[in-house]
Amino acid sequence: MSADDLVPQKVEAILNPGRMLSDGIPYPDFAAARALDDLAEWLPFWAETAERYEALGMAALEAGNRVSGGEWLWHSSLSWHYGQLMWFHEPERREHGQHKKVELYKRAAPHLVAPAERVEIQFESTMIPGYLRLPDGPGPHPCAVLIGGLESTKEESYHFEALCHRRGLATFAFDGPGQGEMYFDVKLCADFHRYTSAVLDAISPRPEVDSDRIGILGRSLGGYYAMQSAALDKRLKSCVAWGGFSDMSDFDGMPPHTRGGFVYVSGYEDLDEGRSYLQETFDLSQSIGDLTCPTMLIQGVHDPIFPPHQTELLQVGLAHNDMAEIVVEPDGDHCCHNMGPVVRPRMADYLARTLRE
Amino acid sequence: MSADDLVPQKVEAILNPGRMLSDGIPYPDFAAARALDDLAEWLPFWAETAERYEALGMAALEAGNRVSGGEWLWHSSLSWHYGQLMWFHEPERREHGQHKKVELYKRAAPHLVAPAERVEIQFESTMIPGYLRLPDGPGPHPCAVLIGGLESTKEESYHFEALCHRRGLATFAFDGPGQGEMYFDVKLCADFHRYTSAVLDAISPRPEVDSDRIGILGRSLGGYYAMQSAALDKRLKSCVAWGGFSDMSDFDGMPPHTRGGFVYVSGYEDLDEGRSYLQETFDLSQSIGDLTCPTMLIQGVHDPIFPPHQTELLQVGLAHNDMAEIVVEPDGDHCCHNMGPVVRPRMADYLARTLRE
Repeated sequence: MSADDLVPQKVEAILNPGRMLSDGIPYPDFAAARALDDLAEWLPFWAETAERYEALGMAALEAGNRVSGGEWLWHSSLSWHYGQLMWFHEPERREHGQHKKVELYKRAAPHLVAPAERVEIQFESTMIPGYLRLPDGPGPHPCAVLIGGLESTKEESYHFEALCHRRGLATFAFDGPGQGEMYFDVKLCADFHRYTSAVLDAISPRPEVDSDRIGILGRSLGGYYAMQSAALDKRLKSCVAWGGFSDMSDFDGMPPHTRGGFVYVSGYEDLDEGRSYLQETFDLSQSIGDLTCPTMLIQGVHDPIFPPHQTELLQVGLAHNDMAEIVVEPDGDHCCHNMGPVVRPRMADYLARTLRE
Repeated sequence: MSADDLVPQKVEAILNPGRMLSDGIPYPDFAAARALDDLAEWLPFWAETAERYEALGMAALEAGNRVSGGEWLWHSSLSWHYGQLMWFHEPERREHGQHKKVELYKRAAPHLVAPAERVEIQFESTMIPGYLRLPDGPGPHPCAVLIGGLESTKEESYHFEALCHRRGLATFAFDGPGQGEMYFDVKLCADFHRYTSAVLDAISPRPEVDSDRIGILGRSLGGYYAMQSAALDKRLKSCVAWGGFSDMSDFDGMPPHTRGGFVYVSGYEDLDEGRSYLQETFDLSQSIGDLTCPTMLIQGVHDPIFPPHQTELLQVGLAHNDMAEIVVEPDGDHCCHNMGPVVRPRMADYLARTLRE
C-alpha cells in the first residue's frame, strides 16, 4: 500500500472547526470553506483568501495602519497554512503553500503586537527558524518555548502566544525536524530534543529572557517532543503536552490522512516502510522517567489520533512525577480543540504559574 | 397590533454568527446554540453556559490565575448578554439576564487586561454607567467613546476595545438611555447626545485622557447617537457610525423582533404608539449639518434593518463634510457583521488615525 492511498477525500476530513477558529481563522472564511462542495476547491479557496488578506495588509501598511497591516498579513499566512494542510498528495502545491505561509509571516512579524523577532539558529549543517516575542513591561521575562506538531507550525501559535504574553511570558516558537521550514532540510527524526537544546543555547543568553524560567509546550506530535525535550534538558523548568502519545503502537487506527502525513514528513513514500520507521523512532518510555519538572498533559477521550491507550501509557510513565497534572477531558477530541476556550487558557495559566514559582 | 406579536419565533431569528463570533462568543458555544431545536431552549442554554464560565472564572481567581479569571467572568457576562437578546416577550427573564450580565462584567472588570475601571456619572436624576480602559504606555491617551445600539451594551465591546487599545487608544464604553443598565431608569429618548456630553464632562478632566483627542463610535442604533453627539458637541474630534440611519421612515420593513425591540426600549407596549414615538424621535436631518469632524460611516447593502434608503439619506446629509468617508459594502449585512474581521480593524484604524492627527 502506498501512502498515496491515504489522501483526504472530503472537505470534512480537513475541516476542524475548534482548531481553526481558536487558531484565528475568521468565522466568515471558515463558513465559506465549510460550504465548498469538493475538496479540490480547498487549496484554491484558501489561496484566494490569503491573497485578499495580503492586499488588505499591504494597503494598510501603506496607509500607515501598522497594526492592521501586521494582522492582515498574518491572516494571509494562516490562510496559506490551512490551504496546504494535509495536502501531501500534491507535494508541489503543498510546498508552495508552506513557502507562502513563511513569507507572509515574515512580512507580518515586525508589525505584530508584540513584534515577532525572527531568530535563525545555526545548528550542525542546518538552521532552526524561530520567532521571539515579548510581553509588556521590563524583562527579563520567563519564556515559553512552543512546538507545533505534524501539521502545525510556528506561524499558527499567534493566538496562543497572546495568551502567554497576557500572563507575562515571552514566547519562542520554532520549527523543528519535519516541521514547516525545517522539513525541507531535516525530516522527522528521533532526536528532536537536540534541536530544542540548540534553541535553549540560543535564547538563554538573551537579556530579555530569564534563563532560569524557561518552559516548553508542544502540541499534538509536539507534545511528544516537549516531554522528550524536558526529560533530557533540565534547563526546561515546566512542560505542557497539549495532546501527546508514548509510542506508535496505535498507528494503524489513525485517520488515513494523518498516517499519510506522518509518512510524508518522515521522508518515506511507502506506508509500510514509513510505519516501521515511525514505530522505531517514537518510544517515550526510554526518556519519560527523566521527566521530573512540573508537567501538564491535556488529552481528549475522543481523540482519534492519540487514543486513550496512549494516555494510559503516559499515565504509567509519569507515575514517578508528583508534579504531573494529567487532564483527561471526557468530551475532548484531539488536543481538546473542541474545548479550546477552556483548555487553552488553562495551559497558559499552568506555564505562567510554574514558571513564576 | 401589539408589540407582543413581534417576538422572535425561531433560533435563526436571533442567531447572528458574524456578530456573535466577532464579539467573542466561543465557537463551541455558538455551534451548540445553533443546534437548539426550539427557541424556548435559547435563554436556558445561555444561562447554563454563563454559569459554567462563572464557575471556571471563580476557580481561576481562587487559584491565582487572574487573567483567566477575568476572561471567564467576562465570557459569563457575554453569555448572559446573548441569552437575553431580543427576549422582550418575557420581560422578567430578560431583565434578570441584563442584571446578571452587568454583575458578571463588574466582577470581571478589575481582572481584565487592561483593567476596566467602572465610572458612575451622576446626571440630573440618574446615573450613567461606563468603563474606562487604558492602552499600554504613558498617557494622556486619545480616547474612543463607544456606544452600543438597540441590543448591544457596554459589556459587548470588549473585543472591539482591544482593537482600540492595540492602536494606542483608551476606551470609554457606556450605556445611555434605553440601553443596558440605563434602560431601567431612562427609556430611549431624543436627546441621547446630552448624555454623551455628560460623559465628556466626566472623562475630559481625567489625567489619563487627552481631552483634545476624544472620538466616538456608535454601533447600529448607536451610529445615530454617535453622529448626533458629534454634531452637537464639538469636543468630539472624530466619529464612526458603525451602521446608522437618518430617520424611522423604513420602520415597517424591519424584522419583526427588531421593531418589537425598538418599541420595548422606548417604553411602549402598543406598536402603533411606539412607531409614532420613534418616528418623531429620530430625525438626523436636524443636526447632521453640524457634523463637521472626520466621520466614517460603515453600511452593508444587505442590511435588513437600515436599508440602502437610509444610506442615501446619510450621504445627502453628509455632502457638506469633506472629511466624511462613507463605506458601503456590497456584500455587507447589518453593521457588516458578516465582514467583521475586515471592517472592525478599519474602524479602529480610522479612530486611531483621525485622533492622532
